[in-house]
Amino acid sequence: FLWCASCNCAPDPRKREALIRLEASRRTGGNITLNEREKLLDSKLQKLKQHDIEAGPFPPSMHFFKAKRFIDQSPVFSLIQKMPKGAALHVHDFAMVDVDWLVKNVTYRENCYVCFTDEQTVQFLFSSGQPASRPRCSSWTLLRSLREKIKNSTELDNSFIRNLTLFTEDPDRDYPSQNSVWKRFEQAFLVAYGLVTYAPVFKDYLYEGLRQFYEDNIMFVEIRALLPATYELDGRLHDKDWSMRACQEVVRRFTAHYPDFLGARVIFTVHRGINATEAVKAVEEAMALQRNFPNIMAGFDFVGQEDHGRPLWYFKDALSLPEDRGVNLPYFFHAGETDSQGTDVDQNLMDALLFNTTRIGHGFALARHPVVKEMSRKMGVPIEICPISNQVLKLVSDLRDHPATVLMAEGHPLVISSDDPALFRATGLSHDFYEAFMGFGGMSFNLGTLKELVMNSLRYSSLPSQRKKEAIEVLLVKWDKFVVESLL
Amino acid sequence: FLWCASCNCAPDPRKREALIRLEASRRTGGNITLNEREKLLDSKLQKLKQHDIEAGPFPPSMHFFKAKRFIDQSPVFSLIQKMPKGAALHVHDFAMVDVDWLVKNVTYRENCYVCFTDEQTVQFLFSSGQPASRPRCSSWTLLRSLREKIKNSTELDNSFIRNLTLFTEDPDRDYPSQNSVWKRFEQAFLVAYGLVTYAPVFKDYLYEGLRQFYEDNIMFVEIRALLPATYELDGRLHDKDWSMRACQEVVRRFTAHYPDFLGARVIFTVHRGINATEAVKAVEEAMALQRNFPNIMAGFDFVGQEDHGRPLWYFKDALSLPEDRGVNLPYFFHAGETDSQGTDVDQNLMDALLFNTTRIGHGFALARHPVVKEMSRKMGVPIEICPISNQVLKLVSDLRDHPATVLMAEGHPLVISSDDPALFRATGLSHDFYEAFMGFGGMSFNLGTLKELVMNSLRYSSLPSQRKKEAIEVLLVKWDKFVVESLL
Ligand SMILES: [Zn+2]
Ligand SMILES: [Zn+2]
Repeated sequence: FLWCASCNCAPDPRKREALIRLEASRRTGGNITLNEREKLLDSKLQKLKQHDIEAGPFPPSMHFFKAKRFIDQSPVFSLIQKMPKGAALHVHDFAMVDVDWLVKNVTYRENCYVCFTDEQTVQFLFSSGQPASRPRCSSWTLLRSLREKIKNSTELDNSFIRNLTLFTEDPDRDYPSQNSVWKRFEQAFLVAYGLVTYAPVFKDYLYEGLRQFYEDNIMFVEIRALLPATYELDGRLHDKDWSMRACQEVVRRFTAHYPDFLGARVIFTVHRGINATEAVKAVEEAMALQRNFPNIMAGFDFVGQEDHGRPLWYFKDALSLPEDRGVNLPYFFHAGETDSQGTDVDQNLMDALLFNTTRIGHGFALARHPVVKEMSRKMGVPIEICPISNQVLKLVSDLRDHPATVLMAEGHPLVISSDDPALFRATGLSHDFYEAFMGFGGMSFNLGTLKELVMNSLRYSSLPSQRKKEAIEVLLVKWDKFVVESLL
Repeated sequence: FLWCASCNCAPDPRKREALIRLEASRRTGGNITLNEREKLLDSKLQKLKQHDIEAGPFPPSMHFFKAKRFIDQSPVFSLIQKMPKGAALHVHDFAMVDVDWLVKNVTYRENCYVCFTDEQTVQFLFSSGQPASRPRCSSWTLLRSLREKIKNSTELDNSFIRNLTLFTEDPDRDYPSQNSVWKRFEQAFLVAYGLVTYAPVFKDYLYEGLRQFYEDNIMFVEIRALLPATYELDGRLHDKDWSMRACQEVVRRFTAHYPDFLGARVIFTVHRGINATEAVKAVEEAMALQRNFPNIMAGFDFVGQEDHGRPLWYFKDALSLPEDRGVNLPYFFHAGETDSQGTDVDQNLMDALLFNTTRIGHGFALARHPVVKEMSRKMGVPIEICPISNQVLKLVSDLRDHPATVLMAEGHPLVISSDDPALFRATGLSHDFYEAFMGFGGMSFNLGTLKELVMNSLRYSSLPSQRKKEAIEVLLVKWDKFVVESLL
């Protein structure tokens, strides 16, 4: 050891320096050696950071909805935007595209109907004729007629945008509890549902999602997808196989147009409110998808508010099925997205590992489970940290208190992701990278931290090993270009 | 290891149970074996906890000023009040006594003058004649005359109470930043100053402080004391030796009256804004006090907002003096009471240990310093966790995000204390124990956790080893009595 517990001598400055270096080496990126150009960029970055810290309100200490305008003006943020960020490994199917696109593009298409619910929200439906009314909803109105009638649609469109996101001026007032913000979250999802499950929009949405992520300098995406039935104008429905083929086709089309984009894969998800029988059916569906779409299908997961859902252990029979049948179905469980300590749900982290999960979504509670933390480290199972999502969904207020500060100080395997950027009005990954870089490490992080996070996103992706190797090579070329250009 | 990283088998429920037990054993109190009566009380306690968690707003998730009325009604809290809590190891001299006593008792004494500052605060002074006016203050008014003039003093007294605490209905609005709440903190301290440094009040304050802590079932107190000059009616001043003798005398008088109270010791503190020369003088004063009052003097510490003060390493020459002179002066440094990551101040935790500190005040930043955390554990240096203080001073909002959740999950050596209960309108230790017990562990903590925390408070006190042993024996007798009585 570098220190002696019982020494009665004044501290030796060299030993002190050695301890500081030892601690720095443990951090995420602490073992990355920066080359000369990277060192130059790092000094520039440290100065920019210092400025953000001293300039006034420190964005990671504020709610993202209030911090966004400060972040958007930050030179650290604009550097992070330009940085190649590798892969986004934790994003949900219908929360990828800036809702402006849904409103300005999708709702202006032909045959789009709207109705107003008695909960002050809206629903949309594409149909070739007048659709049948739904309970607790006004009758359906053709949006084109409505817009013609009211002349100026700006206020209407803005109300749609408000319906589709959680964004608000005063989040602490509007969302007093975790339950209230989760309720709005699920409402916003239902508003988008009628738009994004219309078969042509389903494909366009994915294409536009990939485009927006690509614009944020992301080269690969793993999408947690519910794969709901999509519909045509005449009400005809398509099944999951159709959706998977659609994904495959869109990704192929997209990568043909943007050859330096590596593609996307799908993690099939079901709601954790289902019962054991439904879970068996879902796992069987997942195995079928895995067999039929091995290239694009990555694995299986549960979604929904963890505290209100069933614990993973409840699903143990369903989750043992693939093993029993000798089928390889990778798991990517959301786990530990909770404040409930010592409850059944609080065991989800351990159970995710016992079921050999490939990654852990969130893992917010991991730092308070020392044994599970060691397991995940020894097993090399990374956690997917989504800072803005955790803040908006009220697990943490000041991001400097996020448990990832502890995990990154220890160099725990992890990646940064954005969960539902469209609902928070965040970009693909850049806002979350800013929050993580500034909030979790302050002045202690450097360019090596960012480089390791970016490398991790490919290292821990579900890409097969050869493709992974190639992806990392491509990333490193992009990285060097980024470093050189940022020094100009 | 209990798990196998590459096993392809479904999880074995017995291994899972073993992992859960292993994690439980790591926790604070996880190795304490409860006897039959304790087990009975623990089941009762678990039911009471469950009720607090399900009943409505969960107090540790709210600001203490809003949570207090819920806590005061909680049966878990009333059990904790009755529990013998051992020692309070981190409290400050002039923040121990409920301010009602200062207003209702002290300001009603003869010769008490008040003036009103241009910052809307008040100052007090005892004097035999009209005192000279102070800058930025109204002229001094004799309080007795003022009260006779206004007839009903209730509103005046309430305004004094507001001046003497940080309590407010809407803390988030009134204290938007760490700096703003620290400013009010220092203002409140100045309001009390003229009252508590009046020599007769100085003694009475300490006596009343001990009485209130004793009433909260605390048997020993270590007081961080600035030992400022005290004054008499004619303006005559007393030095630190006088204050130490006063403490000695008061403690003797108190323990004579309450023989099961073990006493109090003093940690001499100076403000961390002083320069290197002043620090040398302060450490020399501390050494003199240590020599002259070995029974009551425990050691030395710095106080004040850590982010705005000088880092410990700046004081390295002064802090090496005792060692150089072969004198033993124990240190009890406040360190890591900060959100500033990677700054000079952020090294205070490491430097406190390098200077062989006996305990660490707060250590809020410890969990994000893995090397320093290991040092403190190997050296057996406990941290003094003050949950309500950290929340009021805006280091953390929801106490479930407090880093002590991590440290207690790992069984890190620590004690629970209250810092400045009078300023927060908290009791001696009970409110902080409630917040720690409910907020840091939820359903995962049990009666063993509380027992270990209580034992720790004596184990890590500055009492000489023989007195410590006796104290723990007395505590265990009180504990058994508490368990039996709580089962009735
Ligand atoms: Zn998610
Ligand atoms: Zn303190």
